[in-house]
Amino acid sequence: MKVGERHYRSIWADERRDAVHIIDQSRLPHVFETLKIDSAGAMVEAIRDMRLRGAPLIGVAAAFGLALAVRRDPSDASIADASRRLRASRPTAVNLAWALGRMQEKLKDLEPADRGEAAWKEAQAIADEDVALNTAIGKHGLALLQKEYEHFKRPVNILTHCNAGWVATVDWGTVTAPIFMAHEMGIPVHVWVDETRPRNQGLLTAWELAGNGVPHTLVADNAGGHLMQHKKVDLVMVGADRVTRRGDVCNKIGTYLKALAARDNGIPFYACVPSPTIDWTIEDGVEEIPIEERDPAEVRNVRGLDADGKYATIAIAKASTPVANPAFDVTPHDLVTGIITEKGIARASERELLAFWPRDQHSKAYLT
Amino acid sequence: MKVGERHYRSIWADERRDAVHIIDQSRLPHVFETLKIDSAGAMVEAIRDMRLRGAPLIGVAAAFGLALAVRRDPSDASIADASRRLRASRPTAVNLAWALGRMQEKLKDLEPADRGEAAWKEAQAIADEDVALNTAIGKHGLALLQKEYEHFKRPVNILTHCNAGWVATVDWGTVTAPIFMAHEMGIPVHVWVDETRPRNQGLLTAWELAGNGVPHTLVADNAGGHLMQHKKVDLVMVGADRVTRRGDVCNKIGTYLKALAARDNGIPFYACVPSPTIDWTIEDGVEEIPIEERDPAEVRNVRGLDADGKYATIAIAKASTPVANPAFDVTPHDLVTGIITEKGIARASERELLAFWPRDQHSKAYLT
Repeated sequence: MKVGERHYRSIWADERRDAVHIIDQSRLPHVFETLKIDSAGAMVEAIRDMRLRGAPLIGVAAAFGLALAVRRDPSDASIADASRRLRASRPTAVNLAWALGRMQEKLKDLEPADRGEAAWKEAQAIADEDVALNTAIGKHGLALLQKEYEHFKRPVNILTHCNAGWVATVDWGTVTAPIFMAHEMGIPVHVWVDETRPRNQGLLTAWELAGNGVPHTLVADNAGGHLMQHKKVDLVMVGADRVTRRGDVCNKIGTYLKALAARDNGIPFYACVPSPTIDWTIEDGVEEIPIEERDPAEVRNVRGLDADGKYATIAIAKASTPVANPAFDVTPHDLVTGIITEKGIARASERELLAFWPRDQHSKAYLT
Repeated sequence: MKVGERHYRSIWADERRDAVHIIDQSRLPHVFETLKIDSAGAMVEAIRDMRLRGAPLIGVAAAFGLALAVRRDPSDASIADASRRLRASRPTAVNLAWALGRMQEKLKDLEPADRGEAAWKEAQAIADEDVALNTAIGKHGLALLQKEYEHFKRPVNILTHCNAGWVATVDWGTVTAPIFMAHEMGIPVHVWVDETRPRNQGLLTAWELAGNGVPHTLVADNAGGHLMQHKKVDLVMVGADRVTRRGDVCNKIGTYLKALAARDNGIPFYACVPSPTIDWTIEDGVEEIPIEERDPAEVRNVRGLDADGKYATIAIAKASTPVANPAFDVTPHDLVTGIITEKGIARASERELLAFWPRDQHSKAYLT
């Protein structure tokens, strides 16, 4: 999507095929900078430090990370080692394991000499497929927004949490794809953007929407319930880091609270989910998904621009203040109105998800 | 309660009776400073700028503000003018209107010459009564915590939102009174403290708890639902800015989301409410309570300590980012397990509240 007047993807291969370029999201929206990543180790760091974030993008990044490792050393040991390190960089994102599994599957029967080229092509294919997935999700979501608009005959108000935008994917985004498409088609939309403490990814969403001319309003995470009570939200749309086979949605911490408010106020709640985000091995998300506990410093500190317009970090709490920082929560399937996938909109149930992806098409094998 | 080794109230009269002293909450917990307020105008500013905050404290502060106005000019016109300005300083806090109504009632039939002394005594009485109210709320809440402890035989986990602590009152706090009392009695408690964006009043709560030795953990506002899903919260206790006669609880924005999560997980949700916070003129809080929309700068900017340990403000969002900043929300009475008052714990229903305060004892007259 657009940054200024130029079109960007969030990750792209260097022409010389010895590196990839990424947008450094850790300093957005204040500073726009791209980084050149030339090794699997550098990619592990970029993922862990959240210079790259968003489940779909992390999968693509891990695939490129593995391709960079293979380029240096195409041995089985090198592939196993790089996969292990990349997989450990963010424990919750299922796309990461999925992409690495797919890469390993592709490479395992090839001669080491052929692996460099094959790995690069496969990573590029995963990136291109991500764009295709989001475009398809966009079309199915667009139909939903169009229907809401025809019903209300006024701008459609969408609330979103965290960033499931184009920078969380390769392009378009999952939640933002239908929004950008609606906006381009002239369907009036307005997006309530949750700040999304502690890392404030909502500011990325606001930055993306502003960059592409979509009306939006930033709110504290606390505001959504009040907005829904007062009929200021027509539908909630969020992304997902992992979705279980019955449709439990694991997403950024705080998503569950918005789902509860949506149900209490009769407002539909949708998750926008490309199929690689579905974990067919898991049914009960609350019981079975391990939730990443992140650095307390993320809660204690906030980043932004100081009085001189310089990028700065301030401490809102003392280092001695005990902090907990769970990064995700799980919204049980019964709070989810629908899951917008590349194949269409499914109810959050195993039956409806299986209708789109019969058992033999699952990517389950890649996850073991 | 304690700050360092010394006991403080949050507001106290100067010995010379020409001013009051307050703790400047706008810079807490980073900087502890007291301010001397010597006119009604200065009190209006202090309330509006949230140097003073918390519904009970605002009521006491307004009473002292009016006493300061009367000291300078005891005429009816002066009283009416100061009351109007003080009342407008925070539109949601019902205690403010209540305290001003009580002061005006006391003064109206007195000779101007007698009003200065009477006003000062009445403001002091309101302050002392606030301490008595919180002590009584503390005792009723303490019984509840004691019961939970006897049931679980492990530390009782309380989640709270915003600051209904001692600095929001004259002393003890509403939510913190039972917690401080339990801690002093040796009943083990642990408090999950919501950060409470945009103004981060949770940091005040953490500061109060730390100052008095109570175990606690700071979390982002988004975390509470996840904690409740995983049985890490035994009860939710919040304060209130206004409670309707049927028990709808208007409190800091985000409270409603926690109440929804509490219900979804079978966790009791209590509001700690001194009777001046009950607005007998209102039944349906969602429909009838006007919600203060505050300065967008509160959402765009965050305050804390910079790398040099200096008090600083950073911008997390551009000035061009549209922002909404509703300051309160309403938790409907059916999500409220009980209202802990100075008279005991009532269900959130008109019938049970009326049993404590029969119609003829209402302070309704003061509100007109």
